[in-house]
Amino acid sequence: MSDESTPNTPAKQHPADIADQLEQLTTDEAAAALRALPAETASEVLTELDTEVANDIAAQLSNEELSSLLAELPHDAAADIAADLSPEQQVAVLAQLDPPESAKVSELMRYSEDSAGGIMRDTFIALPARLTVGEGLNLIRQRGEEEFQGVTYVYIVDEHGKLAGVVSIRDLVFRPPARRLAEVMNPRVHFVRVDTDQEEVARQFTQYHYMALPVVERDGRLVGLVEASQVIGVLQEEATEDMQLMVGVSGEESAHTPWRRAIGKRTPWLYVNLLTAFMAAAVIAWFENTLAQWTALAVFLPIIAGQGGNAGMQALTVTIRSMALGELDGDAARRVLMKELILGLLNGVAFGLTVGVIGYLWKGSFLLGLIVFLAMFLNMVAAAASGVLIPLALRALRFDPALSSSIFLTTVTDVAGFFFFLGLASLLIPLFGHV
Amino acid sequence: MSDESTPNTPAKQHPADIADQLEQLTTDEAAAALRALPAETASEVLTELDTEVANDIAAQLSNEELSSLLAELPHDAAADIAADLSPEQQVAVLAQLDPPESAKVSELMRYSEDSAGGIMRDTFIALPARLTVGEGLNLIRQRGEEEFQGVTYVYIVDEHGKLAGVVSIRDLVFRPPARRLAEVMNPRVHFVRVDTDQEEVARQFTQYHYMALPVVERDGRLVGLVEASQVIGVLQEEATEDMQLMVGVSGEESAHTPWRRAIGKRTPWLYVNLLTAFMAAAVIAWFENTLAQWTALAVFLPIIAGQGGNAGMQALTVTIRSMALGELDGDAARRVLMKELILGLLNGVAFGLTVGVIGYLWKGSFLLGLIVFLAMFLNMVAAAASGVLIPLALRALRFDPALSSSIFLTTVTDVAGFFFFLGLASLLIPLFGHV
Repeated sequence: MSDESTPNTPAKQHPADIADQLEQLTTDEAAAALRALPAETASEVLTELDTEVANDIAAQLSNEELSSLLAELPHDAAADIAADLSPEQQVAVLAQLDPPESAKVSELMRYSEDSAGGIMRDTFIALPARLTVGEGLNLIRQRGEEEFQGVTYVYIVDEHGKLAGVVSIRDLVFRPPARRLAEVMNPRVHFVRVDTDQEEVARQFTQYHYMALPVVERDGRLVGLVEASQVIGVLQEEATEDMQLMVGVSGEESAHTPWRRAIGKRTPWLYVNLLTAFMAAAVIAWFENTLAQWTALAVFLPIIAGQGGNAGMQALTVTIRSMALGELDGDAARRVLMKELILGLLNGVAFGLTVGVIGYLWKGSFLLGLIVFLAMFLNMVAAAASGVLIPLALRALRFDPALSSSIFLTTVTDVAGFFFFLGLASLLIPLFGHV
Repeated sequence: MSDESTPNTPAKQHPADIADQLEQLTTDEAAAALRALPAETASEVLTELDTEVANDIAAQLSNEELSSLLAELPHDAAADIAADLSPEQQVAVLAQLDPPESAKVSELMRYSEDSAGGIMRDTFIALPARLTVGEGLNLIRQRGEEEFQGVTYVYIVDEHGKLAGVVSIRDLVFRPPARRLAEVMNPRVHFVRVDTDQEEVARQFTQYHYMALPVVERDGRLVGLVEASQVIGVLQEEATEDMQLMVGVSGEESAHTPWRRAIGKRTPWLYVNLLTAFMAAAVIAWFENTLAQWTALAVFLPIIAGQGGNAGMQALTVTIRSMALGELDGDAARRVLMKELILGLLNGVAFGLTVGVIGYLWKGSFLLGLIVFLAMFLNMVAAAASGVLIPLALRALRFDPALSSSIFLTTVTDVAGFFFFLGLASLLIPLFGHV
């Protein structure tokens, strides 16, 4: 338990729950509610709010109010909030903090918010390797209760502050007090660098089940600590972002985001989708004569396009999820493309035959059946390939691989599906003179 | 760090990395590779494998091999593997464990694998409240190193083993040794019950940033501990499952799942999709005469259906993600439906006008523009409503709200889109006598 003040009894509300309630209010109401809370609670509520809501509320508060809230917070939480303020407000608010506090907050603000440096906290226990176990224990005894909250491991540093090893609290308590920390520490300590991406940090926690990882500067100096409980927040964020980005929704939006805020991020992608829909429509317009002669063809258009769209979404979703879990680096991408192509070929044959036979039986036309079979087969293969290649291409272009990928995918499956089907029809039907 | 044996040096591979490599092999090869490893490593690798792969390999191992591997594992990990064995193998393997070990593993197998009981570990430090701080410290000193790994908090129980409070290791070390634990403990300790769903456990960790939560039986007896590092695995699993279930892919599949295994789960849903595509096609077939007279209509079919599909996917994805995060209980669902309907109405007007004007300009027909406007408007509203109502309906029917919801959604947007558009056309065009 990181927060001993949270009982199961409803006597006192957790700041996270208060934040959920404030998110339902208008910015003015929320700012007023925040002002009515004791500073300690208000500051914690501020850190629990969705970023956008927190920014809006912060913009309503005076510099004095903001700095008194930030003063209550751990440096990393204060840095997160300060980083989102306007440059003028930032300077004014930081100037009102105690100079040493202000320096520590500014220090943390240097790191990108998606990096290990951006999510780490700077309260951890580091002891010089030259001390004895007994001396180390005495130093810890003198520290404030707060800094010790939830600490399980004590990190050992050399004379330059570089990470040298790790000791569990248990070892510290039960080893002979006269031994040097350098002797009892485990020198093989896993760590991340300040500039390690938070997704990679999360991947390491997922893969190796750490409870905490020390964070070092480029030169090896120990500067922070990331705990499993913080990584949980990162993972939830990243999962939300991936799911929502895929369909052109901001990672920040939740079901409770007011529609005024949601529309600004969603609608532009729907306009992109509209543009791509016109590309698909243009294919149909191109073949309007073919369609005018054999309107039965129109019945199969949505089947071929839709089936490709859904099969492609399967490949796309698995690919994006695997990328997020760090399973798709280097050579792996080629193997995954192979797997999806095999699935695409098999699905192409299976669904091509199914729908082709239905087409043949419906109109008693072998040619219609053949056209349907070929178009379905080709579109299923195109869908499978796109499901893997679209996120790979987005990643190579340094976009998020999930970014509106479902919109790009359905463009491919619609355009390709219509083109294969109507193209084959306009090519083959004149040869036979009938459907 | 939960695993001090993992250095940054590549000298020794982490069991999780070995597991990743085994997942690339055939079951026979993987079983052979596992046999070649020392029992301690092999057992850890077994727990790191994807469930399906682990089950396949376990089926290849003899009962003796399996029980010697399980004997190396923490009880909860052994229980997870044993739970997936065939009933005969289960009995035979458990019979070969030491009777007290076997009893503990069987005990844990009683809990559903998706519950707090299913993910908790049964090694934790519990001290009777009547002891003094000094006596408690002495008891801990006598415990094995392993059981203490990563423990930050010590739980205090009453004479019946019921959870009574919590003490940090720090308090234990630095408080006066003669004081009773009952006096120094914090009695307001947050906990979950063995039957709490793992998604709810994860939600509590996300909301309140716990490092660990004790798990109690229905009668309040302390029986286990869930740590943040375990919840990370649960969250990754749940996020994967939600994303992939939406498009008809099993939550177990990863990019590296062989196609033979993937096809069995994906293809049935594609057949469901095919069925629903035929429903959409049937709408077109129904209006084939209308379409034969005005083939220009066919050009707008994919635009209206596709635009509805993508807007609906936005509403659907946000709804499902919010459900997973526990934000959509009770009254909240109605508010979210309202939000999405407002967005649907606005998008309907915006895209209806855009596409309607284009339709009017293209063919110089006011009627075509009007039909396009109305159909687009209606389909956007239907899409928005379906995006919220489909997952709500699935949940009410006790399915996973994500279950193939994108397939159901595109059915609605295709069928409704075609029906609105062609229905309006067949109704209005005869009145005007032309398009």
